[in-house]
Amino acid sequence: MRQFEDREPSEGILEGRNAVLEAFRSGRTIDKLYVQKDCHDGAVMTILREAKKTDCIVNMVSKDRLDAMSETKAHQGVIARAAAYTYASVEDILEKARDKGEDPFIVLLDGVEDPHNLGAVIRTAGQAGAHGVIIPKHRSAGITPAAAKASAGAVNYVPVAKVSNIGKTLEELQNKGIWSVCADMDGTCMYELDLKGPIAVVVGSEGKGVSRLVKEKCDLCASIPMKGNIDSLNVSVAFGVLAYEIFRQREFI
Amino acid sequence: MRQFEDREPSEGILEGRNAVLEAFRSGRTIDKLYVQKDCHDGAVMTILREAKKTDCIVNMVSKDRLDAMSETKAHQGVIARAAAYTYASVEDILEKARDKGEDPFIVLLDGVEDPHNLGAVIRTAGQAGAHGVIIPKHRSAGITPAAAKASAGAVNYVPVAKVSNIGKTLEELQNKGIWSVCADMDGTCMYELDLKGPIAVVVGSEGKGVSRLVKEKCDLCASIPMKGNIDSLNVSVAFGVLAYEIFRQREFI
Repeated sequence: MRQFEDREPSEGILEGRNAVLEAFRSGRTIDKLYVQKDCHDGAVMTILREAKKTDCIVNMVSKDRLDAMSETKAHQGVIARAAAYTYASVEDILEKARDKGEDPFIVLLDGVEDPHNLGAVIRTAGQAGAHGVIIPKHRSAGITPAAAKASAGAVNYVPVAKVSNIGKTLEELQNKGIWSVCADMDGTCMYELDLKGPIAVVVGSEGKGVSRLVKEKCDLCASIPMKGNIDSLNVSVAFGVLAYEIFRQREFI
Repeated sequence: MRQFEDREPSEGILEGRNAVLEAFRSGRTIDKLYVQKDCHDGAVMTILREAKKTDCIVNMVSKDRLDAMSETKAHQGVIARAAAYTYASVEDILEKARDKGEDPFIVLLDGVEDPHNLGAVIRTAGQAGAHGVIIPKHRSAGITPAAAKASAGAVNYVPVAKVSNIGKTLEELQNKGIWSVCADMDGTCMYELDLKGPIAVVVGSEGKGVSRLVKEKCDLCASIPMKGNIDSLNVSVAFGVLAYEIFRQREFI
């Protein structure tokens, strides 16, 4: 599966209690843990207990020191330096589906630029049973500390692959018998579509949606019906609604 | 409906292109509009056109001036001072359902403290066909500029009522024949519940969920099935998924 391979390390700074705790629980290697001196509540004690089970170096530091280290400015008293984030390959994602004996359910993000939205999408993708998320190398947020935090630790469980060209990757998936559905306001109402079987769902950027070239390659276009006076949903909410409709059709009907 | 009445003004500062444009389009009174001098793109020109149709005073100002005025730090070149936000009453929300000839679909938020989540919930509620949102007076975000911006202008269309006691309001709604469903991780899978008919959906705060006292009053508890290794979704995503399941059952089956 050489054509899919694209691994590169990303920053390994984790901030916030959920992100750090999930990193420990998932078995990810944490090199250093920084905890705010005067934090002794339950969540922090749980993190310290998890840290003790590993070789991780624990530093009790002042709030000022954490503030200075923090990139998200919302560290909640804990920052961890993990081994660099390792992107998965598309083949890893397909293998995860095979291992579970499930039809592949893959998410392709066509240029989601806000790391919070990326993190929220990865979190939701995992909960809705998707096997992985594919993002483009360019014009997209990567797995930054902010994205890892917004994912509430899901980046440790949901494989994320980075590819040069979303359109080309989509074609490669289609050649493997995977249907592709594009989230698009002008598409067919998602409740009228058959979204079962091997599926790749393509979600576009905030504001712009899925690019024309990628949209044209998709087998189906699905829209979320809307009754309100404005014309869209937040990208992570829209993704959640569509991903759960796929989940419902796959597992509940 | 005296027991429901609770109106009070909130801050009337709107920031960001969507929020400002939607305020103009919805007919809300805008007293002053501040636009960044060097912004001449399509979105800003549309806002200026809308402003010209009204009595609004337009000020072209420097980016520094806008930065200094901005509370969200994401004004995108436009800030508007609107007439103060007027909360609706619960009766207004019920009347909206009656006017549309629909069974009431009401959202109760039991202590959502993050204004971005509040805004996102209001936006999604409107799109999923809910007639209004009820929030508690205490321990909850209000309609701040950040919430209005996160709602992408939906605060201008979706009535939001503020009440002293969510539990008491829930009982009053139940007395009017409205079923209540609580979003709860330990509830019945939402796909197995009948969520049609007059309905009030109760969503809890980030982390803590719906408080015990309120949960005990609910007729049903609905859970969102999850396949991932972490145990929750972002509150605005979870709300979107549940609200759309209600929407689907009301309109598509």
